[in-house]
Amino acid sequence: MEFLEQEIIKSGKVLPGNVLKVDGFINHQLDAQILYTLGKECKEHFDGKNVTKILTIEASGIALASFVAYHMGVKALFAKKSQTSNQSKDVYTTRVMSYTHNKVYDIFVAKQYLSKDDKVVIVDDFLAKGEAVNGLMRLVMEAGAEVVGVCIAVEKGFQGGGDQLRREGVDLLSFAIVDEMTDDGKIKFRKA
Amino acid sequence: MEFLEQEIIKSGKVLPGNVLKVDGFINHQLDAQILYTLGKECKEHFDGKNVTKILTIEASGIALASFVAYHMGVKALFAKKSQTSNQSKDVYTTRVMSYTHNKVYDIFVAKQYLSKDDKVVIVDDFLAKGEAVNGLMRLVMEAGAEVVGVCIAVEKGFQGGGDQLRREGVDLLSFAIVDEMTDDGKIKFRKA
Repeated sequence: MEFLEQEIIKSGKVLPGNVLKVDGFINHQLDAQILYTLGKECKEHFDGKNVTKILTIEASGIALASFVAYHMGVKALFAKKSQTSNQSKDVYTTRVMSYTHNKVYDIFVAKQYLSKDDKVVIVDDFLAKGEAVNGLMRLVMEAGAEVVGVCIAVEKGFQGGGDQLRREGVDLLSFAIVDEMTDDGKIKFRKA
Repeated sequence: MEFLEQEIIKSGKVLPGNVLKVDGFINHQLDAQILYTLGKECKEHFDGKNVTKILTIEASGIALASFVAYHMGVKALFAKKSQTSNQSKDVYTTRVMSYTHNKVYDIFVAKQYLSKDDKVVIVDDFLAKGEAVNGLMRLVMEAGAEVVGVCIAVEKGFQGGGDQLRREGVDLLSFAIVDEMTDDGKIKFRKA
């Protein structure tokens, strides 16, 4: 989306190691007007698909997921992270690698909030290699529920996670896809 | 608020150790319609106070803070938690005890997103002894900014944090105040 790309150019920062900092509006400070608009777009994209639940992961996926859930009129569920294994029989759990923090997490959701009848849209702020989204997809499958699609604010296209999902036939809605970041801080977006 | 009290009675659970579980709509699964309405109420309560920023703490404060920020037309900022001390000169930081997790955290916000000209409303899902809110207030003070007030979804009145803030003259808006939880699971709310 044009306005999101403009915002990324305006307030994003390219740091060494292919890091794109957008903490001015999406993962530290939050621009609720932008997120509200993205939530509405996501609702329109998945209209008619009978979505019953939004699934995200703490912490920075929660804001966008909340607005998507608001527009769709369904509840959002956020997976929690734990560095200690949670073997309770009341949760679905899987292991996820965070390249940002260079850590392995167990993520989990309470079984009571995800059932085999759910049709789920997975939402997150960022998609790079796809570790978090793939982990969330495993939780949905463990529940026997259906992944209707995935909605991402900013996809780092050059890291391949998004294209892999597309090859697998996942309905992936990314509002901005960064295809290249140059050392002098320039950001190149994928054309729609 | 009546409808929030009804929701707490309907889907909340009282567990041993004065634990009130409301993860069906506020801190694991999120009811975005309820949070949207609470955000609107918060906006009305602080109307005319020229609020410039909403401050909360990850993770479960983010959803309500996002809706408050949406209605007020300002940005939300969420403090991050770290178990390792963050001594960067680019952040305001303070130490907070989490009784829920029995851990001490350093919480921090980037200095660039909180300035001495900000008029801040602090938002969180829960208020018990007040550790998190007091930590957030210290961050605001460190920035030289002003705390306009505090907005909480569920206050556990019997744990005293809210009443302490009131004695200090803080404009505290709690949408539901639980004054007593009995062993057989009954919840008694404070009358307005």
